[in-house]
Amino acid sequence: MFNWCLSLPSLLIATATESEKPTLVLTAVLLTLAIIYFTSKVGAELSRMANFPPVLGELVGGVIIGVSALSLVVFPESVTADKSLVMNVLNFLNPMSEELLTKVFESESEVISVLAELGVVVLLFEIGLESDIRELKTVGIKATLVAVAGVTVPFALGTVGLMYFFHFPAVPAIFAGAALTATSIGITSKVLSELGWLKSKEGQIIIGAAVIDDILGIIILAVVASLAKTGEVNLVQVLLLIVSAVAFLIGSILLGSIFNKTFEAIVENLKTRGSIIVPAFIFALLMAFLANVIHLEAILGSFAAGLVLDETDTRNELDEQVKPIADVIVPLFFVTVGARVDLGVLNPVVPENREGLYIAVFLITVAIIGKIVSGWSFLSRERINRLGIGIGMIPRGEVGLVFAGIGASSGVLSKPLEAAIIIMVIITTFLAPPLLKIVLGEAKAEIEAGVLKEEIKTPS
Amino acid sequence: MFNWCLSLPSLLIATATESEKPTLVLTAVLLTLAIIYFTSKVGAELSRMANFPPVLGELVGGVIIGVSALSLVVFPESVTADKSLVMNVLNFLNPMSEELLTKVFESESEVISVLAELGVVVLLFEIGLESDIRELKTVGIKATLVAVAGVTVPFALGTVGLMYFFHFPAVPAIFAGAALTATSIGITSKVLSELGWLKSKEGQIIIGAAVIDDILGIIILAVVASLAKTGEVNLVQVLLLIVSAVAFLIGSILLGSIFNKTFEAIVENLKTRGSIIVPAFIFALLMAFLANVIHLEAILGSFAAGLVLDETDTRNELDEQVKPIADVIVPLFFVTVGARVDLGVLNPVVPENREGLYIAVFLITVAIIGKIVSGWSFLSRERINRLGIGIGMIPRGEVGLVFAGIGASSGVLSKPLEAAIIIMVIITTFLAPPLLKIVLGEAKAEIEAGVLKEEIKTPS
Repeated sequence: MFNWCLSLPSLLIATATESEKPTLVLTAVLLTLAIIYFTSKVGAELSRMANFPPVLGELVGGVIIGVSALSLVVFPESVTADKSLVMNVLNFLNPMSEELLTKVFESESEVISVLAELGVVVLLFEIGLESDIRELKTVGIKATLVAVAGVTVPFALGTVGLMYFFHFPAVPAIFAGAALTATSIGITSKVLSELGWLKSKEGQIIIGAAVIDDILGIIILAVVASLAKTGEVNLVQVLLLIVSAVAFLIGSILLGSIFNKTFEAIVENLKTRGSIIVPAFIFALLMAFLANVIHLEAILGSFAAGLVLDETDTRNELDEQVKPIADVIVPLFFVTVGARVDLGVLNPVVPENREGLYIAVFLITVAIIGKIVSGWSFLSRERINRLGIGIGMIPRGEVGLVFAGIGASSGVLSKPLEAAIIIMVIITTFLAPPLLKIVLGEAKAEIEAGVLKEEIKTPS
Repeated sequence: MFNWCLSLPSLLIATATESEKPTLVLTAVLLTLAIIYFTSKVGAELSRMANFPPVLGELVGGVIIGVSALSLVVFPESVTADKSLVMNVLNFLNPMSEELLTKVFESESEVISVLAELGVVVLLFEIGLESDIRELKTVGIKATLVAVAGVTVPFALGTVGLMYFFHFPAVPAIFAGAALTATSIGITSKVLSELGWLKSKEGQIIIGAAVIDDILGIIILAVVASLAKTGEVNLVQVLLLIVSAVAFLIGSILLGSIFNKTFEAIVENLKTRGSIIVPAFIFALLMAFLANVIHLEAILGSFAAGLVLDETDTRNELDEQVKPIADVIVPLFFVTVGARVDLGVLNPVVPENREGLYIAVFLITVAIIGKIVSGWSFLSRERINRLGIGIGMIPRGEVGLVFAGIGASSGVLSKPLEAAIIIMVIITTFLAPPLLKIVLGEAKAEIEAGVLKEEIKTPS
């Protein structure tokens, strides 16, 4: 073996011992976090420059530094410690036995994984804070119909198709079908506001539907993730899970309207640092814990906590303080979701990979058609851009990634299916903004031309 | 065994399997975090109400929920999984095998430990951001002399005393001596400002000395923690470590003045969320990693990063964004430091504990005398309240806890010595504010009386 230890001062040569493990784990975590943040920022900025949502750049950045390419950030379930670039750097700086190297790698990966999970808990807390329950009442029945159609059509088509055409067992098929139901409110609302359609009838329906879709999606996720844990589908269990998820959400919102005042009173009386954010976190963590305890997903709890605290007077200040925390913890989730997925399983050169590619094509098709039809899910006498609404529901964005991430960590998805879901999320998210610009942009030109004609006809 | 599983819906009885470990770890982490935050907030508020610094309440709260009392938050190095209340709750809600319980306990503890370590990295980054290098130049030579005396006297007395009176080996004696050197700038400056002495000659000297003391303390910590890892003292190694710690700090400050402009230019060009905080964290993490790599402490790196970024135009905005992050991560450090310490080893009823108590009394005495003499470390023709300066340097506060926490996790401190250091930090921090009020309060009354007399003598 080449003795590169000579390159370091002779005092520092000594092989690391077991007692140094905590320091080595911290060193590995520090380096991994720096790499993840760097990747997320570069990815987000490049994505934004190309007029795509920043989260896509973080995901693609994750794919690049992950197991598919650079192997900078990898996890023990897919590779051994000696394949991790971070661990190799650490071993170079601080030689250690193979056994210690593996232990440090496992501990570091465990810490990063839990941080990423806390990241999605914080993300859903923030989404909950941003979702306004009262606003939903105004968009009403049309948004609900669009949301329900946009959830059931892709879910049914996807699940049935995967079971009958690709012969998947029920649980992974249901999980993949569920991943098709998401709609990214963030991406759609950004494009709509750029096009000046946010306050239009279509814009309001899309946003309303996306919010309802978020809530339906989180309930579905709570149910399917729980199914994935037991590995079998039992109608009684499914009904029990749906009832408990819905009851949990409605219950916490109802109790929340009472708890609101208590929360405000507590916050008002606290005088030390973190007087708003710490109680809010205690609440969100306890709700996440509670959801986990009743076999739902932790994120359902933090989402409900966000919905409840959105109704308090401290909302704006809380929003401000959650932002920087989300900025430093949420990217861990998106980047590691990308880093975990092995796009190699979709490499078309290898014949065995064909099936994975077919699955990806099938999922993308269902994802697009299933959402477009939702534009025709309601009756209306008004002239309305139904295609625009359908396209507005297409991007899966961060919510779709939450499905993919949780599916991957639960082990229920085969590698090709997991990769196909990620590709579906990427393609739908990339596709929606330009399509929306074309459809709504033309419509707007038509309307403006119409208005112009009318103005010419009836001069003042 | 009593089958309490019956109390849960029959569908949810199944004993947890290995594959559910990630979920169980997350559940344990969520509950532990909620408990830690709750403890820190209650402790901080009660402490503030009693006119003591909030950090003391967090520490004492940690002692109460830790291994000394409630065993809510405990760590595998001191107890087995079945002694942890959190793990018992988890096992009640989700029965698991003893083996799985131990694995979940170890993983959960590892995650909380690393989060606490990241907490102290963020704390020192924040302290660095708050320390103004330029300000030090104005307080000048007197503050430096006070700081140097306040560091060397307790260090020498403590180390020599522990070695000769209590027969400790060199490394733990040096570590405990080093823990005596800290001065808490936060606590002192708060009391001074309450008394209206912050802008006085004495106040300026104390604050300046406390800042220099922080820097000296972090260098000392970097050196002794490194000694603790190898377990032996070698003069060449000590010199090398001191030189590398000083060079690291000075080097990063010098390079920092160039890097500043680059940082500002980068931040200005970023348009996605987290455009200031994420690059700042990348810098702090890389500096912490670098410090760790050259066998110093990670916190020296994040402190240096804070000092450097304090010189940028984005300082105020960065300060604002670091605050909520520090609010949710720093308490993890203080509470777990308290939770780890077993005050049972100082129980005076047990005869074997007497030595630990003698050590505590000795450390407290040295801690107080060593700082008081620093008030007489400089020559001055002006009338100056030297006793006030000495007392102002007494509280060890958070910096003393950083020493205790790192000493405990490095395993170099015996349990009685560790407990004695914690007691010393608590007593000095509790003692300083009332003493300062007495000494400076009286002095102020004298001055005011003097001013009054002069005013009477020379009526306008």
